[in-house]
Amino acid sequence: MASTDKPGTEYYKEVQPPPPPAEQYFVVNVALRVLLFASVLTAVLVVVTSDQTKLIPGLGINLKAKFNQSPAFIYFVVALSVTGLYGIITILASISVLFKPISSTKFMLHFAVWDVLILGLVASAMGSAGGIAYVGLKGNEHVHWGKVCNTFDKFCRHMAGSLAVSLFASFVLVLLIWLSIFTLHRRIPK
Amino acid sequence: MASTDKPGTEYYKEVQPPPPPAEQYFVVNVALRVLLFASVLTAVLVVVTSDQTKLIPGLGINLKAKFNQSPAFIYFVVALSVTGLYGIITILASISVLFKPISSTKFMLHFAVWDVLILGLVASAMGSAGGIAYVGLKGNEHVHWGKVCNTFDKFCRHMAGSLAVSLFASFVLVLLIWLSIFTLHRRIPK
Repeated sequence: MASTDKPGTEYYKEVQPPPPPAEQYFVVNVALRVLLFASVLTAVLVVVTSDQTKLIPGLGINLKAKFNQSPAFIYFVVALSVTGLYGIITILASISVLFKPISSTKFMLHFAVWDVLILGLVASAMGSAGGIAYVGLKGNEHVHWGKVCNTFDKFCRHMAGSLAVSLFASFVLVLLIWLSIFTLHRRIPK
Repeated sequence: MASTDKPGTEYYKEVQPPPPPAEQYFVVNVALRVLLFASVLTAVLVVVTSDQTKLIPGLGINLKAKFNQSPAFIYFVVALSVTGLYGIITILASISVLFKPISSTKFMLHFAVWDVLILGLVASAMGSAGGIAYVGLKGNEHVHWGKVCNTFDKFCRHMAGSLAVSLFASFVLVLLIWLSIFTLHRRIPK
Protein backbone atom coordinates (compact mmCIF):
# COMPACT_ATOMS: atom_id res chain seq x y z
CA MET A 1 0.00 0.00 0.00
CA ALA A 2 2.39 2.70 1.25
CA SER A 3 4.81 3.21 -1.61
CA THR A 4 8.21 4.33 -0.36
CA ASP A 5 9.44 6.10 -3.52
CA LYS A 6 9.18 9.86 -3.32
CA PRO A 7 8.00 9.73 0.29
CA GLY A 8 7.94 13.53 0.65
CA THR A 9 5.31 14.29 -1.98
CA GLU A 10 3.25 11.21 -1.20
CA TYR A 11 3.21 12.15 2.43
CA TYR A 12 2.04 15.66 1.65
CA LYS A 13 -0.67 14.48 -0.72
CA GLU A 14 -2.12 11.85 1.61
CA VAL A 15 -1.99 13.68 4.92
CA GLN A 16 -3.59 16.86 3.55
CA PRO A 17 -7.29 16.58 4.39
CA PRO A 18 -9.86 17.59 1.75
CA PRO A 19 -10.38 21.38 1.65
CA PRO A 20 -11.75 22.25 5.10
CA PRO A 21 -15.01 24.08 4.36
CA ALA A 22 -15.48 25.16 7.97
CA GLU A 23 -15.89 28.89 7.35
CA GLN A 24 -18.15 28.41 4.39
CA TYR A 25 -20.20 25.98 6.49
CA PHE A 26 -20.56 28.40 9.38
CA VAL A 27 -21.57 31.31 7.15
CA VAL A 28 -24.39 29.26 5.53
CA ASN A 29 -25.18 27.85 8.95
CA VAL A 30 -25.65 31.32 10.49
CA ALA A 31 -27.77 32.45 7.52
CA LEU A 32 -30.08 29.43 7.85
CA ARG A 33 -30.34 29.86 11.61
CA VAL A 34 -31.28 33.52 11.24
CA LEU A 35 -33.97 32.36 8.78
CA LEU A 36 -35.12 29.73 11.30
CA PHE A 37 -35.32 32.27 14.10
CA ALA A 38 -37.18 34.80 11.94
CA SER A 39 -39.71 32.21 10.78
CA VAL A 40 -40.51 30.77 14.22
CA LEU A 41 -40.75 34.30 15.68
CA THR A 42 -43.21 35.20 12.90
CA ALA A 43 -45.21 32.01 13.48
CA VAL A 44 -45.44 32.65 17.24
CA LEU A 45 -46.44 36.31 16.79
CA VAL A 46 -49.10 35.40 14.23
CA VAL A 47 -50.63 32.82 16.61
CA VAL A 48 -50.46 35.06 19.66
CA THR A 49 -52.23 37.90 17.81
CA SER A 50 -54.99 35.63 16.49
CA ASP A 51 -57.60 36.55 19.15
CA GLN A 52 -61.03 37.20 17.74
CA THR A 53 -64.25 38.21 19.47
CA LYS A 54 -67.52 37.90 17.66
CA LEU A 55 -71.00 39.02 18.60
CA ILE A 56 -73.57 36.36 17.81
CA PRO A 57 -76.51 38.43 16.47
CA GLY A 58 -79.44 36.26 17.51
CA LEU A 59 -78.23 35.54 21.02
CA GLY A 60 -76.57 38.88 21.77
CA ILE A 61 -73.51 37.23 23.34
CA ASN A 62 -69.83 37.64 22.62
CA LEU A 63 -67.90 34.54 21.62
CA LYS A 64 -64.15 34.60 21.85
CA ALA A 65 -61.48 32.54 20.09
CA LYS A 66 -57.97 32.50 21.53
CA PHE A 67 -55.10 30.12 20.89
CA ASN A 68 -54.86 29.07 24.56
CA GLN A 69 -58.32 27.48 24.41
CA SER A 70 -56.69 24.48 22.74
CA PRO A 71 -53.84 22.46 24.29
CA ALA A 72 -52.54 21.70 20.77
CA PHE A 73 -52.07 25.41 20.01
CA ILE A 74 -50.42 25.96 23.41
CA TYR A 75 -48.00 23.14 22.62
CA PHE A 76 -47.41 24.72 19.20
CA VAL A 77 -46.54 28.12 20.70
CA VAL A 78 -44.32 26.60 23.41
CA ALA A 79 -42.47 24.36 20.93
CA LEU A 80 -41.86 27.24 18.50
CA SER A 81 -40.73 29.51 21.35
CA VAL A 82 -38.22 26.87 22.47
CA THR A 83 -37.04 26.66 18.85
CA GLY A 84 -36.66 30.44 18.70
CA LEU A 85 -34.57 30.43 21.88
CA TYR A 86 -32.50 27.55 20.50
CA GLY A 87 -32.09 29.60 17.30
CA ILE A 88 -30.63 32.58 19.20
CA ILE A 89 -28.22 30.39 21.19
CA THR A 90 -26.97 28.55 18.10
CA ILE A 91 -26.61 31.79 16.09
CA LEU A 92 -24.34 33.15 18.84
CA ALA A 93 -22.41 29.86 19.01
CA SER A 94 -21.95 29.79 15.22
CA ILE A 95 -20.71 33.38 15.16
CA SER A 96 -18.27 32.62 17.99
CA VAL A 97 -16.89 29.70 15.93
CA LEU A 98 -16.55 31.98 12.88
CA PHE A 99 -14.23 34.25 14.86
CA LYS A 100 -12.33 31.43 16.62
CA PRO A 101 -12.44 28.44 14.29
CA ILE A 102 -11.24 25.86 16.82
CA SER A 103 -12.79 22.41 16.94
CA SER A 104 -15.32 23.31 14.25
CA THR A 105 -16.20 19.66 13.55
CA LYS A 106 -17.14 19.21 17.23
CA PHE A 107 -19.52 22.14 16.86
CA MET A 108 -20.99 20.67 13.66
CA LEU A 109 -21.58 17.41 15.51
CA HIS A 110 -23.32 19.13 18.42
CA PHE A 111 -25.44 21.27 16.12
CA ALA A 112 -26.56 18.21 14.13
CA VAL A 113 -27.41 16.23 17.29
CA TRP A 114 -29.57 19.01 18.71
CA ASP A 115 -31.10 20.04 15.39
CA VAL A 116 -32.54 16.52 15.05
CA LEU A 117 -34.35 16.83 18.39
CA ILE A 118 -35.64 20.31 17.55
CA LEU A 119 -36.89 19.06 14.18
CA GLY A 120 -38.89 16.35 15.99
CA LEU A 121 -40.32 19.00 18.31
CA VAL A 122 -41.32 21.41 15.53
CA ALA A 123 -42.76 18.65 13.29
CA SER A 124 -44.89 17.18 16.08
CA ALA A 125 -46.11 20.63 17.16
CA MET A 126 -46.99 21.46 13.56
CA GLY A 127 -48.81 18.14 13.26
CA SER A 128 -50.90 18.63 16.37
CA ALA A 129 -51.81 22.24 15.60
CA GLY A 130 -52.50 21.32 11.98
CA GLY A 131 -54.73 18.42 12.99
CA ILE A 132 -56.83 20.62 15.26
CA ALA A 133 -56.93 23.47 12.72
CA TYR A 134 -58.20 21.03 10.08
CA VAL A 135 -61.07 19.95 12.33
CA GLY A 136 -61.79 23.64 12.97
CA LEU A 137 -61.98 24.19 9.21
CA LYS A 138 -63.90 21.11 8.11
CA GLY A 139 -65.50 19.83 11.32
CA ASN A 140 -66.04 16.11 11.88
CA GLU A 141 -69.61 14.94 11.51
CA HIS A 142 -68.88 11.43 12.84
CA VAL A 143 -68.25 12.80 16.32
CA HIS A 144 -70.33 15.99 15.89
CA TRP A 145 -67.40 18.37 16.18
CA GLY A 146 -68.64 21.55 14.54
CA LYS A 147 -66.63 23.89 12.29
CA VAL A 148 -65.06 26.90 13.95
CA CYS A 149 -63.65 28.75 10.95
CA ASN A 150 -67.01 29.82 9.53
CA THR A 151 -67.44 31.96 12.67
CA PHE A 152 -63.86 32.89 13.48
CA ASP A 153 -62.38 33.73 10.09
CA LYS A 154 -59.53 35.95 11.31
CA PHE A 155 -58.50 33.38 13.94
CA CYS A 156 -58.31 30.65 11.30
CA ARG A 157 -56.44 32.81 8.80
CA HIS A 158 -53.82 33.50 11.46
CA MET A 159 -53.56 29.77 12.26
CA ALA A 160 -53.17 28.84 8.60
CA GLY A 161 -50.48 31.48 8.10
CA SER A 162 -48.62 30.39 11.19
CA LEU A 163 -48.75 26.73 10.13
CA ALA A 164 -47.36 27.61 6.70
CA VAL A 165 -44.49 29.56 8.26
CA SER A 166 -43.73 26.72 10.69
CA LEU A 167 -43.65 24.29 7.75
CA PHE A 168 -41.01 26.57 6.22
CA ALA A 169 -39.12 26.55 9.55
CA SER A 170 -39.04 22.76 9.60
CA PHE A 171 -37.65 22.74 6.04
CA VAL A 172 -34.92 25.10 7.23
CA LEU A 173 -34.16 22.66 10.08
CA VAL A 174 -33.92 19.78 7.59
CA LEU A 175 -31.51 21.86 5.47
CA LEU A 176 -29.42 22.64 8.57
CA ILE A 177 -29.11 18.94 9.46
CA TRP A 178 -28.28 18.07 5.84
CA LEU A 179 -25.65 20.83 5.78
CA SER A 180 -23.96 19.38 8.88
CA ILE A 181 -24.09 15.81 7.54
CA PHE A 182 -22.71 16.77 4.10
CA THR A 183 -19.95 18.89 5.63
CA LEU A 184 -18.92 16.08 8.00
CA HIS A 185 -18.98 13.65 5.05
CA ARG A 186 -16.82 15.95 2.90
CA ARG A 187 -14.11 16.04 5.57
CA ILE A 188 -13.67 12.25 5.50
CA PRO A 189 -10.62 11.38 3.38
CA LYS A 190 -11.53 9.29 0.34
CA MET B 1 4.39 20.56 10.78
CA ALA B 2 5.47 17.51 8.77
CA SER B 3 8.65 16.31 10.45
CA THR B 4 10.92 14.54 7.98
CA ASP B 5 12.86 12.32 10.44
CA LYS B 6 11.74 8.69 10.46
CA PRO B 7 9.38 9.30 7.53
CA GLY B 8 8.25 5.66 7.41
CA THR B 9 6.67 5.45 10.86
CA GLU B 10 5.33 9.00 10.72
CA TYR B 11 3.69 8.26 7.41
CA TYR B 12 2.04 5.16 8.79
CA LYS B 13 0.78 6.92 11.89
CA GLU B 14 -0.57 9.97 10.12
CA VAL B 15 -2.11 8.45 7.01
CA GLN B 16 -3.88 5.61 8.85
CA PRO B 17 -7.45 6.81 9.35
CA PRO B 18 -9.18 6.24 12.70
CA PRO B 19 -10.42 2.64 13.03
CA PRO B 20 -13.12 2.33 10.35
CA PRO B 21 -16.19 1.24 12.32
CA ALA B 22 -18.21 0.44 9.20
CA GLU B 23 -19.21 -3.12 10.08
CA GLN B 24 -20.02 -2.25 13.67
CA TYR B 25 -22.08 0.65 12.37
CA PHE B 26 -24.06 -1.47 9.94
CA VAL B 27 -24.80 -4.18 12.54
CA VAL B 28 -26.24 -1.61 15.00
CA ASN B 29 -27.93 0.10 12.05
CA VAL B 30 -29.71 -3.10 10.97
CA ALA B 31 -30.76 -3.86 14.57
CA LEU B 32 -32.26 -0.37 15.00
CA ARG B 33 -34.01 -0.56 11.62
CA VAL B 34 -35.56 -3.92 12.51
CA LEU B 35 -36.78 -2.29 15.73
CA LEU B 36 -38.16 0.63 13.72
CA PHE B 37 -39.97 -1.65 11.31
CA ALA B 38 -41.41 -3.80 14.13
CA SER B 39 -42.66 -0.76 16.03
CA VAL B 40 -44.33 0.99 13.08
CA LEU B 41 -45.91 -2.31 12.00
CA THR B 42 -47.28 -2.76 15.54
CA ALA B 43 -48.56 0.82 15.61
CA VAL B 44 -50.33 0.44 12.25
CA LEU B 45 -51.90 -2.91 13.21
CA VAL B 46 -53.11 -1.53 16.54
CA VAL B 47 -54.80 1.44 14.80
CA VAL B 48 -56.31 -0.66 12.01
CA THR B 49 -57.86 -3.08 14.53
CA SER B 50 -59.32 -0.31 16.69
CA ASP B 51 -62.87 -0.46 15.24
CA GLN B 52 -65.57 -0.38 17.86
CA THR B 53 -69.36 -0.52 17.50
CA LYS B 54 -71.53 0.46 20.42
CA LEU B 55 -75.28 0.22 20.90
CA ILE B 56 -76.66 3.37 22.48
CA PRO B 57 -79.28 1.99 24.94
CA GLY B 58 -81.81 4.81 25.00
CA LEU B 59 -81.86 5.37 21.24
CA GLY B 60 -81.45 1.79 20.06
CA ILE B 61 -78.91 2.78 17.39
CA ASN B 62 -75.44 1.46 16.69
CA LEU B 63 -72.59 3.97 16.74
CA LYS B 64 -69.32 3.05 15.12
CA ALA B 65 -65.79 4.37 15.65
CA LYS B 66 -63.17 3.67 13.00
CA PHE B 67 -59.81 5.29 12.40
CA ASN B 68 -60.75 6.41 8.87
CA GLN B 69 -63.42 8.75 10.22
CA SER B 70 -60.64 11.22 11.02
CA PRO B 71 -58.19 12.60 8.42
CA ALA B 72 -55.54 12.88 11.15
CA PHE B 73 -55.68 9.13 11.85
CA ILE B 74 -55.60 8.36 8.11
CA TYR B 75 -52.47 10.52 7.80
CA PHE B 76 -51.02 8.70 10.82
CA VAL B 77 -51.59 5.26 9.26
CA VAL B 78 -50.27 6.34 5.84
CA ALA B 79 -47.16 7.98 7.33
CA LEU B 80 -46.35 4.93 9.48
CA SER B 81 -46.92 2.60 6.53
CA VAL B 82 -44.49 4.62 4.43
CA THR B 83 -42.02 4.42 7.32
CA GLY B 84 -42.48 0.64 7.49
CA LEU B 85 -41.81 0.30 3.76
CA TYR B 86 -38.77 2.57 4.13
CA GLY B 87 -37.67 0.35 7.03
CA ILE B 88 -37.74 -2.79 4.85
CA ILE B 89 -35.84 -1.12 2.00
CA THR B 90 -33.13 0.24 4.30
CA ILE B 91 -32.78 -3.09 6.18
CA LEU B 92 -32.10 -4.80 2.83
CA ALA B 93 -29.69 -2.02 1.80
CA SER B 94 -27.83 -2.24 5.13
CA ILE B 95 -27.50 -6.02 4.88
CA SER B 96 -26.20 -5.72 1.31
CA VAL B 97 -23.53 -3.28 2.56
CA LEU B 98 -22.59 -5.71 5.36
CA PHE B 99 -21.76 -8.36 2.76
CA LYS B 100 -20.10 -5.98 0.28
CA PRO B 101 -18.63 -3.14 2.33
CA ILE B 102 -17.92 -0.80 -0.57
CA SER B 103 -18.57 2.92 -0.24
CA SER B 104 -20.02 2.50 3.24
CA THR B 105 -19.72 6.22 4.05
CA LYS B 106 -21.84 7.04 0.98
CA PHE B 107 -24.51 4.71 2.36
CA MET B 108 -24.30 6.34 5.80
CA LEU B 109 -24.76 9.72 4.16
CA HIS B 110 -27.82 8.58 2.19
CA PHE B 111 -29.35 6.89 5.22
CA ALA B 112 -28.90 10.02 7.35
CA VAL B 113 -30.39 12.28 4.66
CA TRP B 114 -33.52 10.13 4.26
CA ASP B 115 -33.88 9.34 7.97
CA VAL B 116 -34.23 13.08 8.67
CA LEU B 117 -37.18 13.33 6.27
CA ILE B 118 -38.81 10.20 7.69
CA LEU B 119 -38.38 11.56 11.22
CA GLY B 120 -40.22 14.72 10.18
CA LEU B 121 -43.00 12.60 8.68
CA VAL B 122 -43.41 10.35 11.77
CA ALA B 123 -43.22 13.25 14.23
CA SER B 124 -45.84 15.30 12.39
CA ALA B 125 -48.15 12.26 12.01
CA MET B 126 -47.77 11.50 15.71
CA GLY B 127 -48.53 15.14 16.54
CA SER B 128 -51.69 15.28 14.46
CA ALA B 129 -53.05 11.93 15.69
CA GLY B 130 -52.09 12.83 19.26
CA GLY B 131 -53.79 16.22 19.02
CA ILE B 132 -57.06 14.66 17.81
CA ALA B 133 -56.84 11.81 20.34
CA TYR B 134 -56.42 14.34 23.13
CA VAL B 135 -59.60 16.17 22.08
CA GLY B 136 -61.34 12.76 21.95
CA LEU B 137 -60.21 12.10 25.51
CA LYS B 138 -60.83 15.50 27.12
CA GLY B 139 -63.17 17.25 24.68
CA ASN B 140 -63.00 21.01 24.20
CA GLU B 141 -65.79 22.96 25.83
CA HIS B 142 -64.85 26.27 24.17
CA VAL B 143 -65.89 24.94 20.77
CA HIS B 144 -68.34 22.30 22.10
CA TRP B 145 -66.37 19.33 20.83
CA GLY B 146 -67.59 16.43 22.95
CA LYS B 147 -65.50 13.61 24.39
CA VAL B 148 -65.39 10.38 22.42
CA CYS B 149 -63.41 8.13 24.74
CA ASN B 150 -66.15 7.80 27.37
CA THR B 151 -68.21 5.97 24.72
CA PHE B 152 -65.51 4.28 22.67
CA ASP B 153 -63.12 2.96 25.30
CA LYS B 154 -61.51 0.21 23.20
CA PHE B 155 -60.98 2.59 20.26
CA CYS B 156 -59.21 5.08 22.51
CA ARG B 157 -57.07 2.43 24.21
CA HIS B 158 -55.88 1.28 20.80
CA MET B 159 -55.09 4.86 19.78
CA ALA B 160 -53.14 5.53 22.98
CA GLY B 161 -51.15 2.31 22.56
CA SER B 162 -50.38 3.09 18.94
CA LEU B 163 -49.26 6.62 19.79
CA ALA B 164 -46.92 5.29 22.50
CA VAL B 165 -45.38 2.81 20.06
CA SER B 166 -44.97 5.51 17.39
CA LEU B 167 -43.22 7.72 19.97
CA PHE B 168 -40.81 4.84 20.50
CA ALA B 169 -40.36 4.57 16.70
CA SER B 170 -39.45 8.24 16.46
CA PHE B 171 -36.84 7.79 19.22
CA VAL B 172 -35.38 4.91 17.19
CA LEU B 173 -35.21 7.24 14.17
CA VAL B 174 -33.41 9.88 16.25
CA LEU B 175 -30.92 7.21 17.39
CA LEU B 176 -30.40 6.12 13.77
CA ILE B 177 -29.59 9.68 12.67
CA TRP B 178 -27.29 10.18 15.66
CA LEU B 179 -25.53 6.89 14.85
CA SER B 180 -24.85 8.07 11.28
CA ILE B 181 -23.64 11.49 12.41
CA PHE B 182 -21.33 10.08 15.11
CA THR B 183 -19.91 7.46 12.76
CA LEU B 184 -19.23 10.06 10.06
CA HIS B 185 -17.62 12.30 12.69
CA ARG B 186 -15.40 9.47 13.97
CA ARG B 187 -13.99 8.89 10.50
CA ILE B 188 -12.72 12.46 10.19
CA PRO B 189 -8.97 12.51 10.93
CA LYS B 190 -8.13 14.61 14.02
